Amino acid sequence: MFKVDLNSDLGESFGAYKMGMDEEILKFVSSVNVACGFHAGDPCVMDKTLNLAKQNGVCIGAHPSYPDLLGFGRRNMQISFEEAKNYALYQLGALFGFAKAKGMKIQHFKAHGALYNMAAIDENLALALCEAVASFDENIIFLGLSNSAMNEAAKKKGLRYANEVFADRAYNDDGTLVSRKLEGALIHDENLAIKRVIKMIKESKVTSINGKEIDLKADSICVHGDNIKALEFVKKIKENLEKEQIQICALENFI
Amino acid sequence: MFKVDLNSDLGESFGAYKMGMDEEILKFVSSVNVACGFHAGDPCVMDKTLNLAKQNGVCIGAHPSYPDLLGFGRRNMQISFEEAKNYALYQLGALFGFAKAKGMKIQHFKAHGALYNMAAIDENLALALCEAVASFDENIIFLGLSNSAMNEAAKKKGLRYANEVFADRAYNDDGTLVSRKLEGALIHDENLAIKRVIKMIKESKVTSINGKEIDLKADSICVHGDNIKALEFVKKIKENLEKEQIQICALENFI
Amino acid sequence: MFKVDLNSDLGESFGAYKMGMDEEILKFVSSVNVACGFHAGDPCVMDKTLNLAKQNGVCIGAHPSYPDLLGFGRRNMQISFEEAKNYALYQLGALFGFAKAKGMKIQHFKAHGALYNMAAIDENLALALCEAVASFDENIIFLGLSNSAMNEAAKKKGLRYANEVFADRAYNDDGTLVSRKLEGALIHDENLAIKRVIKMIKESKVTSINGKEIDLKADSICVHGDNIKALEFVKKIKENLEKEQIQICALENFI
Amino acid sequence: MFKVDLNSDLGESFGAYKMGMDEEILKFVSSVNVACGFHAGDPCVMDKTLNLAKQNGVCIGAHPSYPDLLGFGRRNMQISFEEAKNYALYQLGALFGFAKAKGMKIQHFKAHGALYNMAAIDENLALALCEAVASFDENIIFLGLSNSAMNEAAKKKGLRYANEVFADRAYNDDGTLVSRKLEGALIHDENLAIKRVIKMIKESKVTSINGKEIDLKADSICVHGDNIKALEFVKKIKENLEKEQIQICALENFI
Repeated sequence: MFKVDLNSDLGESFGAYKMGMDEEILKFVSSVNVACGFHAGDPCVMDKTLNLAKQNGVCIGAHPSYPDLLGFGRRNMQISFEEAKNYALYQLGALFGFAKAKGMKIQHFKAHGALYNMAAIDENLALALCEAVASFDENIIFLGLSNSAMNEAAKKKGLRYANEVFADRAYNDDGTLVSRKLEGALIHDENLAIKRVIKMIKESKVTSINGKEIDLKADSICVHGDNIKALEFVKKIKENLEKEQIQICALENFI
Repeated sequence: MFKVDLNSDLGESFGAYKMGMDEEILKFVSSVNVACGFHAGDPCVMDKTLNLAKQNGVCIGAHPSYPDLLGFGRRNMQISFEEAKNYALYQLGALFGFAKAKGMKIQHFKAHGALYNMAAIDENLALALCEAVASFDENIIFLGLSNSAMNEAAKKKGLRYANEVFADRAYNDDGTLVSRKLEGALIHDENLAIKRVIKMIKESKVTSINGKEIDLKADSICVHGDNIKALEFVKKIKENLEKEQIQICALENFI
Repeated sequence: MFKVDLNSDLGESFGAYKMGMDEEILKFVSSVNVACGFHAGDPCVMDKTLNLAKQNGVCIGAHPSYPDLLGFGRRNMQISFEEAKNYALYQLGALFGFAKAKGMKIQHFKAHGALYNMAAIDENLALALCEAVASFDENIIFLGLSNSAMNEAAKKKGLRYANEVFADRAYNDDGTLVSRKLEGALIHDENLAIKRVIKMIKESKVTSINGKEIDLKADSICVHGDNIKALEFVKKIKENLEKEQIQICALENFI
Repeated sequence: MFKVDLNSDLGESFGAYKMGMDEEILKFVSSVNVACGFHAGDPCVMDKTLNLAKQNGVCIGAHPSYPDLLGFGRRNMQISFEEAKNYALYQLGALFGFAKAKGMKIQHFKAHGALYNMAAIDENLALALCEAVASFDENIIFLGLSNSAMNEAAKKKGLRYANEVFADRAYNDDGTLVSRKLEGALIHDENLAIKRVIKMIKESKVTSINGKEIDLKADSICVHGDNIKALEFVKKIKENLEKEQIQICALENFI
């Protein structure tokens, strides 16, 4: 039977600022990426987020970022290997503080926003992140873009790697994501998006923006939970996957 | 044989800003309190600080603070029980990230600055801190002001408690510190300061500012390492303690 | 004819975080208090907020806070006179940057949250804020709680003072607000709240929580715009004031 | 008679962290660039810095940065035109708050660190900064790297431009600075450095790293004041310039 993980970013509120429909999305996903305070999240939000994840039996992962609350971690920053490694370790440890206090384990690590995008193409940066994870706990799964530099880096550092795919994004011939700035980058047809995801899972293939069949492994699908429409799509994708005999379960069960 | 711990705050640099003579003070103390990023310290500083502590065979503790980099954690902030607990847990976890990566353990927890001063008189705040520590690892020793609300709180939460004393401070009849704003708060005579410390260690007594003999347990002496003069005093106090057959060793050996 | 100002806090979004229905509330008020980055707001939000205020012909004021984004400026912090003064001046200047670039003037200054509450009872803190304002531009009106230490401080520093009242809050016999922690602190009956406001404006009187008639000058009424219900109340209060021949206009027209 | 400005970055302390020998360097320079809180400096430091500048009769300029205290503004960040413009305006306004309160004027604007380096090669970023300055006060002089995109941008926005040169740096054939990562980037011979500066001032020429004579206008020389050796060099350069009949005076006197 095929298996896939559904993951979503959450715990992105901060102080008086609320963001995301965390309580709703938790009903549909198998893994969540928890903000650790650098782009979003704060100690009280982290505490609450882990409580919610625990209640819903959902696995958690650290979701570290560049130190850029003002930019929500979406802006590239030129940081050194040491900085990247230490920022990752700090955030991972901080999340672990709450996890340990609640008897939970950290299943995975997924970089956020610009840090994710940069690490997907910059192996040195990816190595810094993997080194942080491996030094802390080599059982933590590294969740990153399918076919990216993060995959290579995880291999080198001896970490298990989970390939993340995006239902609503087009892919280039080399398996990288088509830039959002280009036409055709987003797949607006929900049924097509779901069909593509099913093919990725069952055949490890996707049709590139140029019409080529390319290899693409799908271990986890990234879904959003920040608005009603996104939630509806998650529900729909979940129903369709189950209809196709694809089991939705957390990464730790099959990676 | 009598035993006492010498502790010092360090790892208080931040980014381009340098503070403290960490490499020097590490040669004289048995335990260090490592800033965790809220009042001072940053992930790279924490990494470097733990490396230094490890090289010197010195035990480490978390040194969490109010979230106030601008005020160096020295200003009271009115935070809730939940905030205090979660801020402590976040910082403790963050430090643990680096400790685990280096195969080190966190020996103790000591609140910084205004958080320390407030927790010494506000048992509810002290309980929040103790609850954070106990939920994370009940083997961590809570280091706090001798005769303070922190001691009561640690007892209630089942944590071992280490009584901290100050060589250069006068004490009130109830064992609390004389406010720095009052005359006589500071003991400027180094020899007297050392004599007082030796009495605290050997007899668990100190002469209050009013001339009374009061009970005061001394498990750890706080010393400073931010200037040459402070370092000289640490050297002197260390020599005098050893002359008195008082063994300087980390808290974990006798608490 | 009676005149009163309606003021509201806005520009409280931050980065990716949205807060408040600024575009809606601007249609009903005569003055707005613009967050300056310490508790909320950021340079891009400030820019956008002033554009909106200009389009709506609404007067602006600086809304400085303690430096506490995490706590949204709602937590007391123990800061010195110098810190308070310089924090106020920094935020006032920052807002002035945008105002000058757009050919707008800063009509007033109103402290935010805990800084407002503390300055209402701590004349030294209030003096620090007034000194900052006076040193920058003595034509700026100081907007603060009616009958508070801020009024005294403004007088001493030669600043015009606007008395702020709250429609939905009960008052003590001495004209201070009943603490939110006490029963009866909030007036839930909208019609009663409006009736009270009209009396404050026309007679400079209000009935205290103990049933006494007390003096209370009302130059400006604080209203909220962070949810639909609040907006409905603003609309209602505005209609009722106009029915009573009370003109709603910005402070600069009558203070 | 030839004229040149000597400028230095200062006011870079933050909270409890001290940086720079501000009181010393102020005796030798004609203009200072004041940190505005994004990479360094805080409201109290800004207040103190302007007092010192005023006492020494030295002209002041805003020294805005990327929002990166942790990286001291030395790391590139990918920010938008709007963000750059608004960040510059915020910091400029904040400094103006203190300047106005003290009856001082802001003579110039000089971007800090990575923002300076990026604006030197990215005209769009440079335009954002110039637009901020021009919208606030078109009399403020834009101080930037000689022969850079900032010069073009200032021209387009109608701002006066002051060409900054570095005594201790080698130049490429196109007048840009040789990257610090390359050999020969730094001129270690102090006498040679001074000779080069004098030639820049008198002939508007410098010998490139490849031995070519290139055009390079020198309106202001950047000097450092963060250590004793730097101060000695400033003293030496000043003496040599005066010997050559080159008058050291603030930009506003000749730009």
